[in-house]
Amino acid sequence: MANLRPVEGGVTAPSGFRASGLHCGIKASGKPDLSLIVSETPASAAGLFTINLAKAAPLYLCEAHLASSGGRARAIITNSGCANACTGPQGEADAREMGQLTAAAVGCREDLVLVASTGVIGVTLKMDKIRAGIPEAVKALSPDGGAAAARAIMTTDPFPKEFAVEVSTEFGSFRVGGMAKGSGMIEPRMATMLGYLTTDAAVDPVMLARAVTEASRFTFNAITVDGEPSTNDTVFAMANGASGVTINENLYPALFEGLRAVAHELALAIVRGGEGATKLIAITATGAATDSDAWMAARAIANSLLVKTAIHGGDPNWGRLVAAAGRSGAAFVLGGARVQIGSLVLFENGRPFDELAPQAAEYLTGKDLAIEVNLGTGGSHRATVWTCDLSAEYVKINAEYRT
Amino acid sequence: MANLRPVEGGVTAPSGFRASGLHCGIKASGKPDLSLIVSETPASAAGLFTINLAKAAPLYLCEAHLASSGGRARAIITNSGCANACTGPQGEADAREMGQLTAAAVGCREDLVLVASTGVIGVTLKMDKIRAGIPEAVKALSPDGGAAAARAIMTTDPFPKEFAVEVSTEFGSFRVGGMAKGSGMIEPRMATMLGYLTTDAAVDPVMLARAVTEASRFTFNAITVDGEPSTNDTVFAMANGASGVTINENLYPALFEGLRAVAHELALAIVRGGEGATKLIAITATGAATDSDAWMAARAIANSLLVKTAIHGGDPNWGRLVAAAGRSGAAFVLGGARVQIGSLVLFENGRPFDELAPQAAEYLTGKDLAIEVNLGTGGSHRATVWTCDLSAEYVKINAEYRT
Repeated sequence: MANLRPVEGGVTAPSGFRASGLHCGIKASGKPDLSLIVSETPASAAGLFTINLAKAAPLYLCEAHLASSGGRARAIITNSGCANACTGPQGEADAREMGQLTAAAVGCREDLVLVASTGVIGVTLKMDKIRAGIPEAVKALSPDGGAAAARAIMTTDPFPKEFAVEVSTEFGSFRVGGMAKGSGMIEPRMATMLGYLTTDAAVDPVMLARAVTEASRFTFNAITVDGEPSTNDTVFAMANGASGVTINENLYPALFEGLRAVAHELALAIVRGGEGATKLIAITATGAATDSDAWMAARAIANSLLVKTAIHGGDPNWGRLVAAAGRSGAAFVLGGARVQIGSLVLFENGRPFDELAPQAAEYLTGKDLAIEVNLGTGGSHRATVWTCDLSAEYVKINAEYRT
Repeated sequence: MANLRPVEGGVTAPSGFRASGLHCGIKASGKPDLSLIVSETPASAAGLFTINLAKAAPLYLCEAHLASSGGRARAIITNSGCANACTGPQGEADAREMGQLTAAAVGCREDLVLVASTGVIGVTLKMDKIRAGIPEAVKALSPDGGAAAARAIMTTDPFPKEFAVEVSTEFGSFRVGGMAKGSGMIEPRMATMLGYLTTDAAVDPVMLARAVTEASRFTFNAITVDGEPSTNDTVFAMANGASGVTINENLYPALFEGLRAVAHELALAIVRGGEGATKLIAITATGAATDSDAWMAARAIANSLLVKTAIHGGDPNWGRLVAAAGRSGAAFVLGGARVQIGSLVLFENGRPFDELAPQAAEYLTGKDLAIEVNLGTGGSHRATVWTCDLSAEYVKINAEYRT
């Protein structure tokens, strides 16, 4: 059995990865805006990209590079402050040039570079700043550069997000590290989630793609701040084998658990840092007739404005939870439904337990909440989606006119 | 061709309808909370009910009554202040008794009474108040009672909603009237839309059901305040023939236009009176590959928190409109997409026209806005959904703990 323990750092916690982050001049604020991760040797690589059909230019480039390289990569270059989305042919040319410049500076094939952008939609990249910045970023690469890289992908995130674990197995130990940016959007045209996972295990590209897809399903793909999949959402994974541990089918569960643990912490950090968020809420739908019903109901509840505002106000309003489940599209049987807030059952067998409302309100003053809605179908499927409360601050942030 | 002109009043504007509204004691505030509409003769009747599977007790009763009566009704009794939803067997018994008491007082068969409730979810009806109130409501019935009835279905609506038109055809004139309540939800456990349409045209029940379904599709079913279909959403229509005009296939378009005109005004009034709303926004998706794609995209944009907050802040943020369309599930081609705010095209052929942003921001200071997003597929399908902006006031209203 694999044993996991948290270790310091992020993407450079696994061996054989170097990273850097610096200010090249895209952000007027002078904050870091160029982030680079390099594997010393060609790594297996996988990418998951947004379902948004208004996909940003760098995402198309990454899909092409991963296809051409057969799932290998040496470097990931990311700029913040500009999403390079809805930028037409100029945006495609800019993303390509960003990759070429990085390949030249790192000394690798063009298709071994992955490119990402995050920030304002509909604005083209300041390529003069990026041309000057990339060689500097390569010079600044360091085995301790993970934290700088994590800071340089932030837009309006309230804090940087990185995490790493060591996975010990009977065949040796390897590490999984990661960093992410979330959805603090004080500048109103941004909307991006970026996740980066590194491991020094040796993993075949096909197996890596499978592991990152499965791990993301319960982590990055199970969070919501405002129900808005963005034009730039991306998760990257790189596996360089520097630990000497090779992942085969026997060790696959250990790899999955390592990726899942890092992705879980990063995903929850994104929700905690959501715009205007004051609470992290785990919404679990149980008693669902099918797996997809469980996800549908959990997502509907997690995105319900009435649920998110009630929790913001500390109101144990089980009626809104039932109403959101009932209109989610999932099979739902009111007579068998049950609502549990923390450990308190407020509605069961068609009967409210309003005498518990004061206790439930007390529970909702916490920062880390769990809510379970049983859909009452007698089915055994379940799913958990993490969300945050909806505050007036969210509206304020997103209503401010861009300057 | 039919000719429509607005006339004064609401549900009692057509001949042969009487109505009343009074305070029977459900609301602690002393505001009107019992509303009655009666047709002097048995009318054709149709009902549309919520898709929410946590459907309230009176909705099941109405479905049963309409089935048993073959689409006929004499009366609609409605209480506000309590939704009679999630109330179990007691709620079913209470809804049935409300219908029986009304039938006895009006002097008609039990299945000719339709029953509706709106207000707090999960609380049972104060039946003593309703038992005393129903005979009073029958006594108070008047051909001028439409306005009182419209006030008595309000919960926290900022204003009552009624509208009526006279439809002139070559075969004579008839009227269509209506009233509705919307989604002002200062009391946090309410979430209901109720619409009532009356006409003095003679209409077969099957044709009436068809006309009200088709008219609602582009009116009541094409609005959103917060994307939350409630447990009690209901539209009723009654046609009593008192005008002497009988609707056949030739006159069907005139009936449809009459119903549509009244439902349109009521639906828009619901959005204008949405919680915290300051602007009415018509979102039109064009260039869609299919009809359902057009609806999907228009709904996704109309429910997007980022779009609604941007408009609240007067920000002509076309990137958010494109992003919402791109993730809506509808076919979308970025290169062919176009965004128009008022008469200003801000994005077309992959190119932003940011020089128009100040003019667009000026336009967005208005109260009545139109936005069009072409999905760029070359298709010719289109759909319009009406929504409102999202303000900090919405959060405040819904975060307040129930007292």
